[in-house]
Amino acid sequence: MSQSSKTLPKILKCTLIASSRFFKIESLQLRFSNGQQREFERMRGYHRGAVLIVPFFDKDTILLIREYAAGTHSYELGFPKGLIDSGETPEIAANRELKEEVGFGANSLQKLKKVTMSPSYFSSEMTLFMAFDLYPETLPGDEPEPLEVIKWPLNKVDELLARDDFQEARGISALLLTLKALKDKNNII
Amino acid sequence: MSQSSKTLPKILKCTLIASSRFFKIESLQLRFSNGQQREFERMRGYHRGAVLIVPFFDKDTILLIREYAAGTHSYELGFPKGLIDSGETPEIAANRELKEEVGFGANSLQKLKKVTMSPSYFSSEMTLFMAFDLYPETLPGDEPEPLEVIKWPLNKVDELLARDDFQEARGISALLLTLKALKDKNNII
Repeated sequence: MSQSSKTLPKILKCTLIASSRFFKIESLQLRFSNGQQREFERMRGYHRGAVLIVPFFDKDTILLIREYAAGTHSYELGFPKGLIDSGETPEIAANRELKEEVGFGANSLQKLKKVTMSPSYFSSEMTLFMAFDLYPETLPGDEPEPLEVIKWPLNKVDELLARDDFQEARGISALLLTLKALKDKNNII
Repeated sequence: MSQSSKTLPKILKCTLIASSRFFKIESLQLRFSNGQQREFERMRGYHRGAVLIVPFFDKDTILLIREYAAGTHSYELGFPKGLIDSGETPEIAANRELKEEVGFGANSLQKLKKVTMSPSYFSSEMTLFMAFDLYPETLPGDEPEPLEVIKWPLNKVDELLARDDFQEARGISALLLTLKALKDKNNII
């Protein structure tokens, strides 16, 4: 359970090999500490990171959004999320996304954990939050159609986890870390 | 909490705009049901899917691997995982990955959930499993260096979740769904 003593492979060469408006693909020439050389491909990250928020409408109810997802060409249930804009802290970005996507700001944000998507191929990081003490405030978003906001009772979480349209791992992590945080808090009290 | 009555946007055009050995990027021309037209970029998926496995060494101990991740250029703790090969079921792929990455096969696999990475941009799906009743068997993998296999006691899960080198959302989802499944099972008994 100790930290690894492994030495990171040396990056011999890093080349941009394909790119579009949103994606940049790099080829990485690596030499591992045992002398093995390999070529890996990875996606160049945005560096500014992203946020995802579990908003509490009241102590027993969270808010979800239903949104079109182009990758899977389907409507998916999930939590408000988005990229951190230039100059924003993760907290400020979380509050902005809440206002844009669910029509509330939050007086209280509590960080759950920073997560990655697939560290073998992507560097992008997302900070997961819980949001409490909401107040109505709307900011215009850039969605092509209004997002559907859904109140979901916490005592029906098992139904949510069983749904085929609630399957983004970062959202599942946020939901289960939220339940764990609530449980740990109640155990302390 | 009902199913959405929303009509999926119409894909007017789908064009391959950039590609490398591993990644293919598509541009999608969409018309939403309200008439709004937008251009989205997404990654073309592998279709064959992937698996990730939480292996139980005994009833109180899970197995982790420590592996170099090129996307984040760091060594990360996580669970054995990999793409499903042509002709494999998810269960067969899970057993092969276990043999390649931790040196065990499993007599019993239990599905937790199918998850996505980021459905707005990727179609790739991963099936999460728990593996029980392990037996020693090794298959050669394609790793540039031997993977470090680590026994982690279940009663130290909070320490694992707090670590900065355990942050892949799909692995966190698998771990927390595992704990939930064990708890639900004990409650039933």
